[in-house]
Amino acid sequence: MSLNSYGHLFRVTTWGESHGPAIGATVDGCPPGIEISAEALQVWLDKRKPGQNKFTTQRRETDEVEILSGVFEGVTTGTPIQLMIRNTDQRSKDYGDIAEKFRPGHADITYWQKYGIRDYRGGGRSSARETASRVAAGGVARAALAKLAPKLQITGYMVGMGEKDIDRTRFDWDEIGRNPFWTPDAKAAEEWAGYLDALRKDGSSVGALLEVTVRGCPPGLGAPVYGKLDTDLAAAIMSINAVKGVEIGEGMAAARLRGEANADEISMGHDGPTFNSNHAGGILGGISTGQDIVVRFAIKPTSSILTPRKTITKSGEETEIITKGRHDPCVGIRAVPVAEAMVAAVVLDHLLLDRGQTGGVRGPIG
Amino acid sequence: MSLNSYGHLFRVTTWGESHGPAIGATVDGCPPGIEISAEALQVWLDKRKPGQNKFTTQRRETDEVEILSGVFEGVTTGTPIQLMIRNTDQRSKDYGDIAEKFRPGHADITYWQKYGIRDYRGGGRSSARETASRVAAGGVARAALAKLAPKLQITGYMVGMGEKDIDRTRFDWDEIGRNPFWTPDAKAAEEWAGYLDALRKDGSSVGALLEVTVRGCPPGLGAPVYGKLDTDLAAAIMSINAVKGVEIGEGMAAARLRGEANADEISMGHDGPTFNSNHAGGILGGISTGQDIVVRFAIKPTSSILTPRKTITKSGEETEIITKGRHDPCVGIRAVPVAEAMVAAVVLDHLLLDRGQTGGVRGPIG
Amino acid sequence: MSLNSYGHLFRVTTWGESHGPAIGATVDGCPPGIEISAEALQVWLDKRKPGQNKFTTQRRETDEVEILSGVFEGVTTGTPIQLMIRNTDQRSKDYGDIAEKFRPGHADITYWQKYGIRDYRGGGRSSARETASRVAAGGVARAALAKLAPKLQITGYMVGMGEKDIDRTRFDWDEIGRNPFWTPDAKAAEEWAGYLDALRKDGSSVGALLEVTVRGCPPGLGAPVYGKLDTDLAAAIMSINAVKGVEIGEGMAAARLRGEANADEISMGHDGPTFNSNHAGGILGGISTGQDIVVRFAIKPTSSILTPRKTITKSGEETEIITKGRHDPCVGIRAVPVAEAMVAAVVLDHLLLDRGQTGGVRGPIG
Amino acid sequence: MSLNSYGHLFRVTTWGESHGPAIGATVDGCPPGIEISAEALQVWLDKRKPGQNKFTTQRRETDEVEILSGVFEGVTTGTPIQLMIRNTDQRSKDYGDIAEKFRPGHADITYWQKYGIRDYRGGGRSSARETASRVAAGGVARAALAKLAPKLQITGYMVGMGEKDIDRTRFDWDEIGRNPFWTPDAKAAEEWAGYLDALRKDGSSVGALLEVTVRGCPPGLGAPVYGKLDTDLAAAIMSINAVKGVEIGEGMAAARLRGEANADEISMGHDGPTFNSNHAGGILGGISTGQDIVVRFAIKPTSSILTPRKTITKSGEETEIITKGRHDPCVGIRAVPVAEAMVAAVVLDHLLLDRGQTGGVRGPIG
Repeated sequence: MSLNSYGHLFRVTTWGESHGPAIGATVDGCPPGIEISAEALQVWLDKRKPGQNKFTTQRRETDEVEILSGVFEGVTTGTPIQLMIRNTDQRSKDYGDIAEKFRPGHADITYWQKYGIRDYRGGGRSSARETASRVAAGGVARAALAKLAPKLQITGYMVGMGEKDIDRTRFDWDEIGRNPFWTPDAKAAEEWAGYLDALRKDGSSVGALLEVTVRGCPPGLGAPVYGKLDTDLAAAIMSINAVKGVEIGEGMAAARLRGEANADEISMGHDGPTFNSNHAGGILGGISTGQDIVVRFAIKPTSSILTPRKTITKSGEETEIITKGRHDPCVGIRAVPVAEAMVAAVVLDHLLLDRGQTGGVRGPIG
Repeated sequence: MSLNSYGHLFRVTTWGESHGPAIGATVDGCPPGIEISAEALQVWLDKRKPGQNKFTTQRRETDEVEILSGVFEGVTTGTPIQLMIRNTDQRSKDYGDIAEKFRPGHADITYWQKYGIRDYRGGGRSSARETASRVAAGGVARAALAKLAPKLQITGYMVGMGEKDIDRTRFDWDEIGRNPFWTPDAKAAEEWAGYLDALRKDGSSVGALLEVTVRGCPPGLGAPVYGKLDTDLAAAIMSINAVKGVEIGEGMAAARLRGEANADEISMGHDGPTFNSNHAGGILGGISTGQDIVVRFAIKPTSSILTPRKTITKSGEETEIITKGRHDPCVGIRAVPVAEAMVAAVVLDHLLLDRGQTGGVRGPIG
Repeated sequence: MSLNSYGHLFRVTTWGESHGPAIGATVDGCPPGIEISAEALQVWLDKRKPGQNKFTTQRRETDEVEILSGVFEGVTTGTPIQLMIRNTDQRSKDYGDIAEKFRPGHADITYWQKYGIRDYRGGGRSSARETASRVAAGGVARAALAKLAPKLQITGYMVGMGEKDIDRTRFDWDEIGRNPFWTPDAKAAEEWAGYLDALRKDGSSVGALLEVTVRGCPPGLGAPVYGKLDTDLAAAIMSINAVKGVEIGEGMAAARLRGEANADEISMGHDGPTFNSNHAGGILGGISTGQDIVVRFAIKPTSSILTPRKTITKSGEETEIITKGRHDPCVGIRAVPVAEAMVAAVVLDHLLLDRGQTGGVRGPIG
Repeated sequence: MSLNSYGHLFRVTTWGESHGPAIGATVDGCPPGIEISAEALQVWLDKRKPGQNKFTTQRRETDEVEILSGVFEGVTTGTPIQLMIRNTDQRSKDYGDIAEKFRPGHADITYWQKYGIRDYRGGGRSSARETASRVAAGGVARAALAKLAPKLQITGYMVGMGEKDIDRTRFDWDEIGRNPFWTPDAKAAEEWAGYLDALRKDGSSVGALLEVTVRGCPPGLGAPVYGKLDTDLAAAIMSINAVKGVEIGEGMAAARLRGEANADEISMGHDGPTFNSNHAGGILGGISTGQDIVVRFAIKPTSSILTPRKTITKSGEETEIITKGRHDPCVGIRAVPVAEAMVAAVVLDHLLLDRGQTGGVRGPIG
């Protein structure tokens, strides 16, 4: 079952609400002997942490992760790893109005209808705050991958924001960490700053287009036909708050292509097969090819905006609501480390699954 | 675990290869007391069956489903339902060349690398033939939904093919069943016929853009935050052969919108809440709202084309390959009933899951 | 997957080591609207808490449970419930000797062999301290059962200790809570006190025979043929530290009976079917009959004794070991609330599963 | 979920009813490259086949297994293996009386209550006929184990029948295959023949005590604390029809021992650690020690006897029933290959799971 869990062998269960005492992740199935420390995990959490610049929410959370179990003398023991993050900034008064009204575009109304009760404080369980737990768990996955597949690199970045896109000819891996948008296009970063600042001042918000690339992934990961690597990546990404679409390789554009244009031809390289293009996004038949895995997804604009919106109350009366609180004009920015974390968890999980079933041996070519 | 299974409570495991003796689906967790017959399931299989018109493969499979268990006196007993479809047309000679060469854009190379062995006959397990099992299982899900949620309707259709799109102002639900493309736009159907015929004569292929709409879905289905309804829909759709992208509601276009444009305002209708728009695609926070659920996805063009393509052999030599066989110029056409089946299974599964956890009671509004 | 999780819909994952900062349970899938408080859970934890009398370990743990998520205004929200218990008494020096030596009868050697690392402090993850998490989670299950099946009662008790047994003619439900052995036979309780005291002074230990009875369980729970109620009960009980055997109803003695003696005849009572005996232990074909469910199990004597025992070190040298620490002469005593908790979780889980699949409707008789 | 499935990575789902067209097992997650043939599987099925001597039911089933998928050119491909066994002898008239009456000691009444419908022909899904599917799936597990752990041997045998027990001083592994009771005690076999023949002529039945020993199991298998090897063995065995108790090593007798008597001392042998006794039954803390794994269980006497028994009808009337049909006086005999199969599946599953999580590396000793 997987109400609040994901993964087959490397299995993560997150818990916690926006304004409860803490949130966290229970990580089961991690290989033993992996070096882990709170400090190392903190690096990833700091990438996602709010309040780092004017483009992300001013909620002040230190987001300090504590490791409560599963690590002994700095090394994983193979037993469950409990990662806890205390909620320190719980300004409940910001959210008083939403106890009775359902915010449009939020999960308020669906949680209420499903459960007959909801923790309305900051969105409760449906708050994007939950994603901090994902980032912490993803840090564990990254540490394991660093040992088991040392050449593997997972990098997320923004390729579009609202009506604006990057210019792929300016793509620079090194640029990604240098600007507040995690975008590989330095010029785009400059332009977007003004664009987003204007939106922020308007009390508005905008969606974003993001991409995660896995470089150095070994071939053979993925378990067809329902535990496919792309299936699990799609689920992992779609489970992130505000995601409305997921693409692998060509993605939705594949609908527009002819067979000659889409199928990646194969050559023989020095170290084995190589492909002359990568429309497939590194996955064929649900199994990794060894090429870059490319996952793209869209984040909707947050519905927490300063413009009044029509809605109803629990008692069924029509009314309006303005979501004051402290919010991000583009929640997509902070989705970058979250998506990286999800991809890391999925890839590690499939690496373990594959090792379990096949022993990790590969069919020889050449 | 879910290598070849999907679903939580309503759980389907498919099995079988393109050119083995049979394929099928093991369906576990179906509610008891549902009327099922081979004839009723056959209706759905016939929608997907090859050889129905010149736009689908001329492979002649009768695709007759047999119910081997779980049904007694025409009614499900609550025990596993085994659905078997014999492979009758196994012209293995068509596929002789691919025993040694890896077809570009196919799973030949990845299956080989992962498993060190592959059933190369017609793609073996990775063949789209597997989707017949999905359709059969989906037929069971539909029968259960007909009893448990009688107003619910699941309809798939094609909204784009290659460079062509439907005109949504001409959208007609009744048109869908009248043309070979399952498209709701009669005029598009006419145009596409010539377009696809030309591609077919060229020995080429093209991708497609498809949509499935669920009308009449009750609110409250979906189990956040990893068993979300959209998460499971995305996984179910992405697991279908050749799918490269999945969207819910606005989908990838959500990246382009501002918050004011995206969040669906809420009003109070006669029978409860209504929404003034449906950018969300019927799902908020992973839970159904009661609006139409809209899932869109892209199918890549089949890589089985008559143009020679560069590839390598198992022994690592560079060569070329032409995929003769009998193939569909637009595999997207036959993906329509497959996607409907996957959506039916996911919705039923979540209906059962919700009933299990909450008893199906809804939080009152008004 | 279920390395550290159990349950299908009501799903518990425990985490934590004996001498880490905390232990706990992540409880997913709980129905919403159930009243839960730390105080109410504490009642069950106090039953298991060490140091309550001279027959249980003198380790001083307050075992105070904190609810970190999933409960809002005193009521479950349907989201994951995180239950944390801080480890307060971590006298690590007691366990210094076991870093290098493997204690006979303990999991030291197997954890080392499997993982290549082990948290040797107090047994780490393999410590019976983990069972406090089970009791906390079981408290949640009991609260849900109190609402969903109010007549259902789960009671554990000791029926044998070492060479001694209760006299079933003296069975008194009310006696169970009055003596330190949770035994329904007051006279046995008296005798056992002296027997166990002598063993304790010897630095020895003894096994125990325990039973859990579920009264008032509705018929129809259990999902054949691998999610049978007795299958899941057997697994849940066998997973408890030190358990070496599990029985349902007649249990191992069923091997000795003839068919006439074993099959429970059926009559028609005022409220439906009744059985003239209960050799089946309330379960037929994996499904509850409505009779009392009777689960019996054996706990081995703890291997932590003061007699020197032969063993080896990590470097392979033969040596001896005495387990000093603070231990229970009969760990079976504290297993009573643990087993009750496991049974509660299994029964609730099957109640939800059954509701999911069948809607909870029963086939009519009469 | 696991209504009709077991296993984590090596996952088996069985399907089919006693008097439907066929029964079978869907086996997912099998390693690729394992030699499998219908003939090799048939060897195990023939051990369980009815009608082999006067002590087993005279139902004439050829029990021929067909492999419908997952095997190519005699070798597993890593995809699902479908094993089908046609039901050839379906003498439905034997079972006509039970459509209305519930047989005491059978699952008739519980299936009816749970599902509101039941396939009454021969017990339908609850028939022990289902165990043929287990044996077929177990044959696949054995083939994989033969490759991955070639020294491992799984042997089941009968150690008691009714009031009679074997004499362990006469235990002879080679005797097991020579007598109809699969007992290692030749003298017991002689005595039991007369004992059981008398029972058979009486139209009565008797229970049995069985044991399965795994020799040559590597250390390190089992995933604490809920995927313990003994937990999964207990579940697998308890899921077999008519099993009422399961023991590991000392089993229920562990309740009677003192710590000194129970904990197995450890020495250093030529090839690593050895144990001076095996009260643990080869498992400590849920993980295999490398010693023999010993699982013991009790099978109840079949309730299908010729003595009239009191029961009720669907309409609630009290009546009597005699189960004519063709039945085994001691169903325990045919449970031997079934239990072996279940143990094989569990051990293989844990071997794969361990390889997935740890890579199969063991912590060094000495």
